[in-house]
Amino acid sequence: MSLAIKDDEVDIVIGALRSDLTTFMNEWRPMFSRFHVIIVKDPDLKEELKIPEGFNLDVYGKPDIDQVVGSSTSILFSGYSCRYFGYLVSRKKYIISVDDDCLPARDPKGFLVDAVAQHISNLTNPATPFFFNTLYDPYAEGADFVRGYPFSLRGGVKCALSCGLWLNLADHDAPTQALKARQRNSRYVDAVMTVPARSLIPISGINIAFEREAVGPALVPALKLAGEGKCRWETMEDIWSGLCVKIVCDHLGLGVKTGLPYIWRTDRGDPIASLKKEWEGVKLMEEVIPFFQSVRLPREATTVEECIIEVANAVKERLGSMDPVFARAAKAMLDWVKLWQSVGSSS
Amino acid sequence: MSLAIKDDEVDIVIGALRSDLTTFMNEWRPMFSRFHVIIVKDPDLKEELKIPEGFNLDVYGKPDIDQVVGSSTSILFSGYSCRYFGYLVSRKKYIISVDDDCLPARDPKGFLVDAVAQHISNLTNPATPFFFNTLYDPYAEGADFVRGYPFSLRGGVKCALSCGLWLNLADHDAPTQALKARQRNSRYVDAVMTVPARSLIPISGINIAFEREAVGPALVPALKLAGEGKCRWETMEDIWSGLCVKIVCDHLGLGVKTGLPYIWRTDRGDPIASLKKEWEGVKLMEEVIPFFQSVRLPREATTVEECIIEVANAVKERLGSMDPVFARAAKAMLDWVKLWQSVGSSS
Repeated sequence: MSLAIKDDEVDIVIGALRSDLTTFMNEWRPMFSRFHVIIVKDPDLKEELKIPEGFNLDVYGKPDIDQVVGSSTSILFSGYSCRYFGYLVSRKKYIISVDDDCLPARDPKGFLVDAVAQHISNLTNPATPFFFNTLYDPYAEGADFVRGYPFSLRGGVKCALSCGLWLNLADHDAPTQALKARQRNSRYVDAVMTVPARSLIPISGINIAFEREAVGPALVPALKLAGEGKCRWETMEDIWSGLCVKIVCDHLGLGVKTGLPYIWRTDRGDPIASLKKEWEGVKLMEEVIPFFQSVRLPREATTVEECIIEVANAVKERLGSMDPVFARAAKAMLDWVKLWQSVGSSS
Repeated sequence: MSLAIKDDEVDIVIGALRSDLTTFMNEWRPMFSRFHVIIVKDPDLKEELKIPEGFNLDVYGKPDIDQVVGSSTSILFSGYSCRYFGYLVSRKKYIISVDDDCLPARDPKGFLVDAVAQHISNLTNPATPFFFNTLYDPYAEGADFVRGYPFSLRGGVKCALSCGLWLNLADHDAPTQALKARQRNSRYVDAVMTVPARSLIPISGINIAFEREAVGPALVPALKLAGEGKCRWETMEDIWSGLCVKIVCDHLGLGVKTGLPYIWRTDRGDPIASLKKEWEGVKLMEEVIPFFQSVRLPREATTVEECIIEVANAVKERLGSMDPVFARAAKAMLDWVKLWQSVGSSS
């Protein structure tokens, strides 16, 4: 069922938080080498990047960011947020992004999973957010819609974002990671699902793909924790951005999928050390969720940019006085839309 | 995490649409024999039932139905609806029901699946309808909530209904079954999920379990197609009942799960013959879904019975004039609530 897409419609965007990408790139070579790769170096990283030969790639660093973005913005591209710069400068229809501590996974039969191909299949097959299909992805081979599924909804809608999962180290927050430091995820769930409309989801940025032309501006580096570190469990930027994407997709009638592909996530960081820091992110979520559950976008907002501006204004109004992190997030979202328009990524 | 439950808190309810239950009961013996079994014979079935020895069971037939229900009701307990009589006369907390053309399945490692134990685990562990967990059932062993999942929602809510799936013959409608007559489902998805609040789902009655004390009256034999046959793909009674359960659960803050356990569904019926009949059910769904998507229950409806009466009245008002099948369904729902109260199943 998958539509054929051309190799030059895809950018692989990698945020480099560590300098030696040799193993990472070599392990991903079978999946990445057909496509153009954008590597964005974390501006906080001092050492030079080590990248093996044989890829069609562009590397961006602090000087490039300073040149394109300038100094008149509230957006910080440090840490995991560096790859958003890659989203900004990409000109491709689709973007696939994987954290640099992740390697290709193997399925239960021992076959290497081509995460890129699976993400492309997720994005190019329709999503079904308006009715739940108990048989999972109805467009997968050998699958279909279940009895009782309305025929009028079987065409589905465009899938704008695909969120993949993790074997070995799952994506937990710092308290869970510290509490279950030895827990590893070995459960391979052979399924892709559309997240139903109006259901919120904590989208993780570790292993994602999206149609940049459809929802690019909604992936926004906005929520920067005061004590944000270089471990995923110390960050919230992707969770915030994911909530933005989901409500924008719900408003515009686009779909979000979760499930396959799996990647193999290697260990990085010390959960106990993370735990000693304040649970800032965990506490903020208790304010953030009721906000996103209740925010309503006006009918007049018909583009992703307009939607993000609406969300930013609502954040400023309803969350701004609670914690300075929210006022900064609102400002960053407005700046991001301007940047997206001025850098020329807007359609 | 599963709460211990006592064997005498469970009824296994089987609707007998064919007379020889020998293979069926013998194959299920390892899972069924600890529990009390209720077998309800389809009133249309003339032959005597063949049931092997060694079970703690009660069998009900047409005379019992006539005696308990009387003649002053619009409810028809024929065909797949016969087992609703079992729900009515049960006095147990939980009910598990499997169609008589289903056998225990094997997991990918070749182990026999204990569908009863899995259903009980689904029902006794909380559900999480108010936020999507990408790591599937957070209460399963080795699983947890994903980063970004609000801590205030991690306690979950009571799970009222568990809908299992099917290997071999999946649950398709007549057109799909006829079109893909040879398609068999071999995809074993090792997951249990909560269906998000406000997301509708076509719940199939083939392999289900529910907390009778929590939602019993919402499982209602109401929508009887004019040309209803003895194949699942010719029926809609369970889909309708499932839509009722889901909106009642959403209103009362209860959860619905789908996924494991799988059962092995054997072939029965001729999809091509079914196809020659009118696609009555398929067409009705196009009216039914917008209705269930938009129906709102008043705050004053705080019991399942009150909710079902509200839905019945709305069906009569909004769908009643479209097709006589809906007026009959509304009447059957009101009669069902009365019956549930008079037979004494109400709490």
